[in-house]
Amino acid sequence: MEIGFIGLGAMGKAMATNLVKAGHRVRVWNRSPGPAAALREIGAEAAANAGDAFRGDLVISMLAEDGAVRATLLDNGAIAAAPKGLLHINMATISVALATELTTRHRECELGYIAAPVFGRPDVAAAGNLNIVAAGPTDLLDRAQPVLDVLGQKTWRVGEEPIRANIVKIAGNFMLGAAIEAMGEATALTRGYGVSAGDLLEILSNTLFAAPVYKGYGALIAEERYEPAAFKLKLGLKDIRLALAAGDGANVPLPMASLLRDNMLDAIAAGDGDRDFAVLATVAQRRAGQLSKS
Amino acid sequence: MEIGFIGLGAMGKAMATNLVKAGHRVRVWNRSPGPAAALREIGAEAAANAGDAFRGDLVISMLAEDGAVRATLLDNGAIAAAPKGLLHINMATISVALATELTTRHRECELGYIAAPVFGRPDVAAAGNLNIVAAGPTDLLDRAQPVLDVLGQKTWRVGEEPIRANIVKIAGNFMLGAAIEAMGEATALTRGYGVSAGDLLEILSNTLFAAPVYKGYGALIAEERYEPAAFKLKLGLKDIRLALAAGDGANVPLPMASLLRDNMLDAIAAGDGDRDFAVLATVAQRRAGQLSKS
Amino acid sequence: MEIGFIGLGAMGKAMATNLVKAGHRVRVWNRSPGPAAALREIGAEAAANAGDAFRGDLVISMLAEDGAVRATLLDNGAIAAAPKGLLHINMATISVALATELTTRHRECELGYIAAPVFGRPDVAAAGNLNIVAAGPTDLLDRAQPVLDVLGQKTWRVGEEPIRANIVKIAGNFMLGAAIEAMGEATALTRGYGVSAGDLLEILSNTLFAAPVYKGYGALIAEERYEPAAFKLKLGLKDIRLALAAGDGANVPLPMASLLRDNMLDAIAAGDGDRDFAVLATVAQRRAGQLSKS
Amino acid sequence: MEIGFIGLGAMGKAMATNLVKAGHRVRVWNRSPGPAAALREIGAEAAANAGDAFRGDLVISMLAEDGAVRATLLDNGAIAAAPKGLLHINMATISVALATELTTRHRECELGYIAAPVFGRPDVAAAGNLNIVAAGPTDLLDRAQPVLDVLGQKTWRVGEEPIRANIVKIAGNFMLGAAIEAMGEATALTRGYGVSAGDLLEILSNTLFAAPVYKGYGALIAEERYEPAAFKLKLGLKDIRLALAAGDGANVPLPMASLLRDNMLDAIAAGDGDRDFAVLATVAQRRAGQLSKS
Repeated sequence: MEIGFIGLGAMGKAMATNLVKAGHRVRVWNRSPGPAAALREIGAEAAANAGDAFRGDLVISMLAEDGAVRATLLDNGAIAAAPKGLLHINMATISVALATELTTRHRECELGYIAAPVFGRPDVAAAGNLNIVAAGPTDLLDRAQPVLDVLGQKTWRVGEEPIRANIVKIAGNFMLGAAIEAMGEATALTRGYGVSAGDLLEILSNTLFAAPVYKGYGALIAEERYEPAAFKLKLGLKDIRLALAAGDGANVPLPMASLLRDNMLDAIAAGDGDRDFAVLATVAQRRAGQLSKS
Repeated sequence: MEIGFIGLGAMGKAMATNLVKAGHRVRVWNRSPGPAAALREIGAEAAANAGDAFRGDLVISMLAEDGAVRATLLDNGAIAAAPKGLLHINMATISVALATELTTRHRECELGYIAAPVFGRPDVAAAGNLNIVAAGPTDLLDRAQPVLDVLGQKTWRVGEEPIRANIVKIAGNFMLGAAIEAMGEATALTRGYGVSAGDLLEILSNTLFAAPVYKGYGALIAEERYEPAAFKLKLGLKDIRLALAAGDGANVPLPMASLLRDNMLDAIAAGDGDRDFAVLATVAQRRAGQLSKS
Repeated sequence: MEIGFIGLGAMGKAMATNLVKAGHRVRVWNRSPGPAAALREIGAEAAANAGDAFRGDLVISMLAEDGAVRATLLDNGAIAAAPKGLLHINMATISVALATELTTRHRECELGYIAAPVFGRPDVAAAGNLNIVAAGPTDLLDRAQPVLDVLGQKTWRVGEEPIRANIVKIAGNFMLGAAIEAMGEATALTRGYGVSAGDLLEILSNTLFAAPVYKGYGALIAEERYEPAAFKLKLGLKDIRLALAAGDGANVPLPMASLLRDNMLDAIAAGDGDRDFAVLATVAQRRAGQLSKS
Repeated sequence: MEIGFIGLGAMGKAMATNLVKAGHRVRVWNRSPGPAAALREIGAEAAANAGDAFRGDLVISMLAEDGAVRATLLDNGAIAAAPKGLLHINMATISVALATELTTRHRECELGYIAAPVFGRPDVAAAGNLNIVAAGPTDLLDRAQPVLDVLGQKTWRVGEEPIRANIVKIAGNFMLGAAIEAMGEATALTRGYGVSAGDLLEILSNTLFAAPVYKGYGALIAEERYEPAAFKLKLGLKDIRLALAAGDGANVPLPMASLLRDNMLDAIAAGDGDRDFAVLATVAQRRAGQLSKS
């Protein structure tokens, strides 16, 4: 297929690479030129601008956050100028407010639109093992499926309204943050009685909590290995804010998300914003006076 | 072996039954007589009182909470009167304060003492598949091991001080509560945008959160199946209080545990104290005005 | 003086009225025409549009929130077209982000700008007894003082940067919300032991807490008198969001503000968004199961 | 009158001194002998033990916390041995659980019993200006009134059941903690934008929050004057725990009290447990990274 691809951050670059390797004709665009050059070396074409990527069989966008989506796709007229009938697969994690606006805007412009945010870090994207949560009209999902199959190990369809995929992604990232905070408090508690984070988490992440989140982040916490960051805490905070904003929109109190927000601000104030999301666990330790003792 | 067994609640009864079936000579005692009678039918002996169970090769106690332990083992002199050198395996979930006191008391009375609390519901106990967290002097743990192997699928040794096992158990139950609360808030959030708890949790408990806690409690939440209770919310609150009390003792702030405590009181005030711990998830729904709409 | 006045809500109308009565020549503008007509009857002139109010000696704006300020003063060019040197006194409660933007914009347009948000409900405004928190260059504050003296009982000057007045106002409203929540929880607690809100608050608001906030909101809580709303809960939530957003901007965790936010969403979900801010106190009662009992 | 007085801490010593000066015959007892000696110098008599103070017209106890009350009055038989009909005025801040137990115990022993906890620091006690919250049978309150009039500026009667006075005192101290936390967060917020605690609190404690709590603690916060402690943070935590325990007893969620508890543990872990309760305000500053900058 002929695919436009917008947004070549750590995630997007890995995904676009997989599409090229799978034999698709991929036209890429990125705000800074470096990543596009790397993609060209393996056979991708370069789009002249974001709008230029909006042609062919479908276009995928994987931008970092609401502001980038708005600047790249809305403000500069890329969507407005796209050929009618083109399918746009938005795989970014964005707010429900922007998701709603984009759905309307594509309909007005007679473009196909599906939301397909993903679970997985860059290494998972590189392996083509993402879990993709997709929502949109069934016929559009069917058109997208061969491409999604290249990018992920499984596509979870959650309905016809694109926003449904976005809220699932937001809820999942909130639960991720909650799991890290829980590990942070639990290990601060046991450490107060001489039991290390490693001792505690080895047991739990092999029994009741034998899941990727607990094994992966648990290992980072046990080893106090917060750099290099696979997923920066300040990006995690962005996602918690999306959860809180979504809660605002539907009058859903989210006290645990509020707690995460405050503790993540604490971490940022302590200088840990660019370290891995797992560093959130140190807030509980610091507040218990355990870090200064070490 | 000749084993005393004190405390025949849902957990204790299943465990004592396994010991009898494994060929041990088991002398049981329980505050109310019914469960002991059932055990006698399959070959157990009845102890005349709690103290009478304190003889033979070792004694196991599996009592419901601090008060029961204190009344059954300390106040009536059972420990004080036990034959020197006897090994006592305390498998109950108790406070770190009482754990410390018991360790001292057994030393004074020249008794062996190990703490071996368990993870697993009654059905897991019946299957002999508990995860046992054990702490105590290595030679005592070695003596206990054959018996623990009957009761659980694995024994996780965490050190020589009994209290270490207790704090691990407390931390694990806190994390369990945190996971339920996270699922409750996450599903209230997605429900506010039309995505059911089942849709959300099917995805998450098969990907990032593919662990027993999320699968098991997630299913209860998705199906709103809170009765019969395998683990009552009010017993879950008892464990959260143990976590908060342990935090008090070591100056460890536990804001997530505090949040759990308040939401569990909310659930009890709403009449859900005797329903399954998973009912905690409904607090977020009720606060979002979602329950009255249904 | 010749004064433009933009924004004739409950607060603005009372303030503009006082300026007319004090003998100033006041040119008013409001999005909906009714309030301007009432002002004309007592001697005010009508501005043709918001920009038309930007002339004379100074212009005062008292708009409801960021969106209204942006729409009325920025988007339509009112500030851009104003005569150089004109003094603008912005008395609205706005975000620190917008306050910063406005300060820059006025400087670019060579206009004088001071922020002068107020503490006080509409009845206090009508009596000319507002407490005004003002910040801006000293010479501009001096120019504004005679007018501020008509509107308030006292002007508290807090520095040269306008944003300083805004953050003080935001912090004050946060503390107001915290006081209401504290009264809500305290009265739920005593009510759980048979002591009414009235009994508790009569004592406290006449001793340790003998201050307007506790006397005023305490009376509303004790009498469960939440309508008519002098200050609606949903407007209170707007202010708490300003506090949280300001905290975001400076990496200041605000757990008490987060708690307020969640409880106010709870109140809105329960249908109380248009009732008085004091209705926040009922959240604690409802969660304790006390409302269904009454 | 002939008055027994038990408990000569900072508060009790000031109160007993006032009774002596008012011409009463006072028989004092204290666990450590120093304070009793000082009282003897101004004319008090020394009781041989706590039980020896239980005679004459009435006995007042002003002990530090539940444990001291239990050890001094219950465990050693002082109440059991007291002459029937004697009136005991318990002015300590104790738990509702102990208050209930004491009420029952006095009835069994045919003693009069009223609870009369106080608001006010030691300097207020010395000036005879305490606010006393009293509950008990009316005839007993009438008997106590002349003595209470010596100790306080006003007695607030709240009913016939002693526990009612205790819960009012507990709720008041919770509100005090909430006010300090609110000031802590508010000043951290404004400080993030360059406005000092002093600037903010001068305005608020002279307008909306013009009450003793805000003026007094606000001054300590503004001046960062946390020593010497008039009321130690760790004693404040004791009172918050009484609130939480009372909430437990009546199924009242108290999220703000939970927040206070966690932040006070944070303060204690940071080494501030023996500083004034006002030091709680520094937790918000430290979490915002403001303390390390100073």
